[in-house]
Amino acid sequence: MHERTLGAVVVALLLMSVPPPAMAQPASPPPPHLSPEVLSDRRVTFRIYAPKASAVTLRGDWMETPAPLALTRNAEGLWEGTTEPLGPAYYSYSMTVDGVRTLDPRNALIKQGISSVDNMLFVPGPEAAFEATANVPHGDIRAVWYPSSTLGGQRRLHVYTPPGYDSSTDRYPVLYLLHGGGDDDSGWSTIGRAGFIVDNLLASGAVRPMIIVMPNGSLPRPANLPPATPGAPPSPQAIAASAALQDRFTSELMTDVVPHVERHFRVVPRPESRAIAGLSMGGGQTQRVLGAHPGAFAYVAIWSAGVNPAATTDFETRNAAMLGDAAKVNAAVKVLSISVGDKDFALPGTKNLAQILSSRGITHTLHVSGGGHTWINWRRYLRDYLQVLFR
Amino acid sequence: MHERTLGAVVVALLLMSVPPPAMAQPASPPPPHLSPEVLSDRRVTFRIYAPKASAVTLRGDWMETPAPLALTRNAEGLWEGTTEPLGPAYYSYSMTVDGVRTLDPRNALIKQGISSVDNMLFVPGPEAAFEATANVPHGDIRAVWYPSSTLGGQRRLHVYTPPGYDSSTDRYPVLYLLHGGGDDDSGWSTIGRAGFIVDNLLASGAVRPMIIVMPNGSLPRPANLPPATPGAPPSPQAIAASAALQDRFTSELMTDVVPHVERHFRVVPRPESRAIAGLSMGGGQTQRVLGAHPGAFAYVAIWSAGVNPAATTDFETRNAAMLGDAAKVNAAVKVLSISVGDKDFALPGTKNLAQILSSRGITHTLHVSGGGHTWINWRRYLRDYLQVLFR
Repeated sequence: MHERTLGAVVVALLLMSVPPPAMAQPASPPPPHLSPEVLSDRRVTFRIYAPKASAVTLRGDWMETPAPLALTRNAEGLWEGTTEPLGPAYYSYSMTVDGVRTLDPRNALIKQGISSVDNMLFVPGPEAAFEATANVPHGDIRAVWYPSSTLGGQRRLHVYTPPGYDSSTDRYPVLYLLHGGGDDDSGWSTIGRAGFIVDNLLASGAVRPMIIVMPNGSLPRPANLPPATPGAPPSPQAIAASAALQDRFTSELMTDVVPHVERHFRVVPRPESRAIAGLSMGGGQTQRVLGAHPGAFAYVAIWSAGVNPAATTDFETRNAAMLGDAAKVNAAVKVLSISVGDKDFALPGTKNLAQILSSRGITHTLHVSGGGHTWINWRRYLRDYLQVLFR
Repeated sequence: MHERTLGAVVVALLLMSVPPPAMAQPASPPPPHLSPEVLSDRRVTFRIYAPKASAVTLRGDWMETPAPLALTRNAEGLWEGTTEPLGPAYYSYSMTVDGVRTLDPRNALIKQGISSVDNMLFVPGPEAAFEATANVPHGDIRAVWYPSSTLGGQRRLHVYTPPGYDSSTDRYPVLYLLHGGGDDDSGWSTIGRAGFIVDNLLASGAVRPMIIVMPNGSLPRPANLPPATPGAPPSPQAIAASAALQDRFTSELMTDVVPHVERHFRVVPRPESRAIAGLSMGGGQTQRVLGAHPGAFAYVAIWSAGVNPAATTDFETRNAAMLGDAAKVNAAVKVLSISVGDKDFALPGTKNLAQILSSRGITHTLHVSGGGHTWINWRRYLRDYLQVLFR
């Protein structure tokens, strides 16, 4: 229990009129400090009390180079570091204390991944109003468990239902929204801000009411896959096993997720009322779904994911049927939208994907924004995509 | 990003056919290790790689004494410690590395509080079957935002709806379920396992279908409240301000939460179909709600919370109206159930509460279980309480 919490709990225990338990006191209590502190010029100061540490660094998703922010120690053992001014947005970060990854003990805003937890940070400002928690009607975000025939056992997904869903008898269109590698089905509702983004757009009348389904695209690691060697490139066996895993996600989505959603929610179960979008690993999954089921989703968005130029032949072979029938794809897919940042390492692959589609006559748009491979961009891509759906 | 995740992400990036970014490699990669590892005799081994640390300890909610588990370092810098055998249950724990509170980097199972995050751990076994994720129909857990007139601004609560809620037109009874100090509205759905407990009981026909509403009982700290001094008892001003805060929760519940729930969910809006229960701080809040609105909830449960013998007069003064009208309370409240563990520091206060109620002729049950002030007990109290509700 943190020292800040401890005070609140002791008071609460006294209030409910039980004596608090004896609790060990820290040898020397930390000096009062805030973290993170957003300064008036939008620089952000981070602090952590670690009197015995020899090095404290911080990585944030606003950083465009691999070098972390090095915090410096004061005489009391409090470490501190300040960023350059940050644009208004949500960000994620984590600290490393003497090589051990550590949450900021003063910040309870977190996002969870499949094997890691990061802190979050909000820098307010007009550019971030679209993703802020505003005084507007809010849809619900549900954690939904379902039996997966593809993967076996119980599996979780998140579902956004719009304000008024419960009291309505309408049927709604559905967006299937996929996260990236390392995240799980909660990611779009924490660092992704999906519910708040659509709430704000609904309040201004800019989008149609819809259901958003956020499955877990991080599939269980196959038991026969040897562990990765840190620093070494993945083995051919690992690449083949992971390719098979990504194909299983297509099966999970089409065999388990979509039917479960269409049984349990009031949706319009037609391709014209189905959209899909995914970022990074989820963008690769979206490509696989499009390749295998080109008529299932009338709206398709691929963000920060493409086709490595060295793997063009493999991609074309796997997707021969789809790529060879542009007329069918163009008739079924009303919007095929590809987005990537100009500093995103996925830029060459994404341009290559667009080039392959162009060469086959498959209609699409390619949008190159500023910025890199970050949630800052993916939230904006979602905001823009939502406004063209189901028109 | 953790090294375990890193391998998966690199493979995913290759798969979606973009070159992965250059990532800094750790100076010396950690040796392969699991944490936590549940051994066949139900001892649990924890491990963390912290080659520069001079001390690593671990606190878990199974511990009945303040002393933490001290981990020991091997030659590679991997720290390790093993518990005694633990009973089958969910547990929470956190590590401390050289005085800095740290999540177990190998364990993504977490619970979040208002200013802290703990790891969770499941020790399976027959005694924990009631709280396990079983192959049964699951209700949804919704994160719901609502405008609070009492507190101002947008506030969040969690709502469990039972399997079949969406396709039914029935109206359901409602349990209002309150967490303890330091937690928030997510607590009953993470470490509290509430949804899984009721899913399992529903599958065996042991409970009636119901909605469970889990508000956030940790109210914003008043701006005029001076910060607590670590190690010092709370000031009279802090106690008075916190008492006012707890009274505000009664207003928040009755003015904002219950009306919002009764407008937005298909509930039976009558006292006979309303239950309330709370643990620790939430048990104190339940006492306040009962004192101020003795006819609003036909089922009331108070867990690990009572009346400090030194504060009996204050309690009797604040609750004079309720305590002076046993006939009214006994007619309105079908079940008034009080539970506490025999090693819980709240035991004397809880016995005192039962004694006060007895002396006034207010019907209730007092159940003293084994164990202390922990979620292990509160999940069992919930399991038992659910089975007497709405009969």
